[in-house]
Amino acid sequence: MGNVSCFLKGYKLGATFSNIRSNSSPASTSPMAAEQLGVSAENGVQNGKILAAIDDEFDGVIVEMNKAMDPMVFHSMLKASLSQWRQQKKKGVWIKLPIQLANLVEFAVKEGFWFHHAEPTYIMLVYWIPKSQNTIPANATHRVRVGAFVMNEKREVLVVQEKAGSLRGLGVWKFPTGVVDEGEDISDAATREVMEETGIDSEFVEILAFRQTPKLFFEKSDLFFVCILRPLSFDIQAQELEIEAAAWMPLEEYAAQPFVQKHEKWMKRIIDIYKAKVDGVYAGFSRLLTEAKNSLYVNEKGLISCNNNII
Amino acid sequence: MGNVSCFLKGYKLGATFSNIRSNSSPASTSPMAAEQLGVSAENGVQNGKILAAIDDEFDGVIVEMNKAMDPMVFHSMLKASLSQWRQQKKKGVWIKLPIQLANLVEFAVKEGFWFHHAEPTYIMLVYWIPKSQNTIPANATHRVRVGAFVMNEKREVLVVQEKAGSLRGLGVWKFPTGVVDEGEDISDAATREVMEETGIDSEFVEILAFRQTPKLFFEKSDLFFVCILRPLSFDIQAQELEIEAAAWMPLEEYAAQPFVQKHEKWMKRIIDIYKAKVDGVYAGFSRLLTEAKNSLYVNEKGLISCNNNII
Repeated sequence: MGNVSCFLKGYKLGATFSNIRSNSSPASTSPMAAEQLGVSAENGVQNGKILAAIDDEFDGVIVEMNKAMDPMVFHSMLKASLSQWRQQKKKGVWIKLPIQLANLVEFAVKEGFWFHHAEPTYIMLVYWIPKSQNTIPANATHRVRVGAFVMNEKREVLVVQEKAGSLRGLGVWKFPTGVVDEGEDISDAATREVMEETGIDSEFVEILAFRQTPKLFFEKSDLFFVCILRPLSFDIQAQELEIEAAAWMPLEEYAAQPFVQKHEKWMKRIIDIYKAKVDGVYAGFSRLLTEAKNSLYVNEKGLISCNNNII
Repeated sequence: MGNVSCFLKGYKLGATFSNIRSNSSPASTSPMAAEQLGVSAENGVQNGKILAAIDDEFDGVIVEMNKAMDPMVFHSMLKASLSQWRQQKKKGVWIKLPIQLANLVEFAVKEGFWFHHAEPTYIMLVYWIPKSQNTIPANATHRVRVGAFVMNEKREVLVVQEKAGSLRGLGVWKFPTGVVDEGEDISDAATREVMEETGIDSEFVEILAFRQTPKLFFEKSDLFFVCILRPLSFDIQAQELEIEAAAWMPLEEYAAQPFVQKHEKWMKRIIDIYKAKVDGVYAGFSRLLTEAKNSLYVNEKGLISCNNNII
């Protein structure tokens, strides 16, 4: 997996990291490949000197440590392993250390490894053996959030006041918002957040518009998708932890808030677009299912106008 | 910054992590706040016993280590600091360790810290003091990629063959694709990738459609935006490192490739949508500038039809 950027380049490719791992060795034909290769059984150790590694598709190797090891032994084995991999013309070297083995991190760093990414339970380190420029792919770059317009038959929209954040105590009503969970579809996140915050059941209609804000959070950019949902229930039950109050509010009243008017290039504009939508002219991106769990978001109305049927 | 999720909830908020840091203390009024508070000057040490920390907006503290420290001293000071922060009713505790201080990671972990995220040069650890459920925000969840349709006046599209990846050597022509860099706008990434891969100068027109693929890469989801670009130059210069060949190819010929036809729910559908666009009916999302460097992507044509002018 030395060069996963290639992997990312091809829109055709649907394999996951674990797929790559399990398919990368001729001997491995299932997700149990690591264990079959003796990685689990021998704690990353092969023949007592070299760290057990699995080849990846990009002339690289992957080491997945999973049991405690004396740091000095690890350091020594890592040196020997790098020497061998260099002879074998390997490129990228990945070492995944569970948080329980945090004491090994510094020894990988001493050998020139750097941090690729970390999640609560592990850190992934990486090293590039050749003298050529490395093609190690970057870490995830974006957070994705959703906001939801939900309107009932009285032309009222669903709004909330939050208990935390900079708007708390200011009496500002806003539409429900939230963060898309790892692996969750945007449309599913929108209906989930509305349910969590207000108890309203709803179904996804379309993405009205979205905004990209560079480097909003830890240098990561923010993609904020404004969604239209159709309510399937109407009795509000505000969530206690995060929500101060929730209500159905006439759209005009919502739009008239100073908070909205003040942000004319964002909030006010979004409401103008939403009004264009409610009046039946504007078309956003709705969701089509493609292969597997993938979603394709397109302007279906634009396609219907064109062909009189959906592609 | 114990509860940055609140921060993320509010679409109004445009501050960055560094803004929060520098604004969080009454004593700090500029990006130099950390140094003013003596953090840089004293290497994370305040009065010899407690790690220097800056308050965040969410009743938490941030420790930014920047010089070497004996691990045992660090461990001892961290224990004393946690005790003090607990008395002060602090919530989230963030410790940023540059990769040079990788030897301190295990001691933070011993005190209950876990990994929040890592970038090549540092790791961010976090801990939640209260007994209540933590509201520490998750790490970035998405990679964002772009693909670009660029058509000349002969109804030919710009296509490339890649040197690496699973399509290499198969003779498949695909439109230029690439990964959005950290902090880069989607539209800018599209024109940059086309320039890098083919030498063609272009301008962004709109997003035709986009696809979300869950957990494509290290459990991270993939957002793939298909963009329409207008060429501003026409002489191709294929990039040597990644591109085997680049060409202008009749759209019909491109679409007739077995590779495209095989993926009827994705590639073929995208080309059908593109044809609807080329024929002047379909409307995707174009880019409007909002505040600062933010981009709002909307169906401008839908707005024009509605109001006879752009909002």
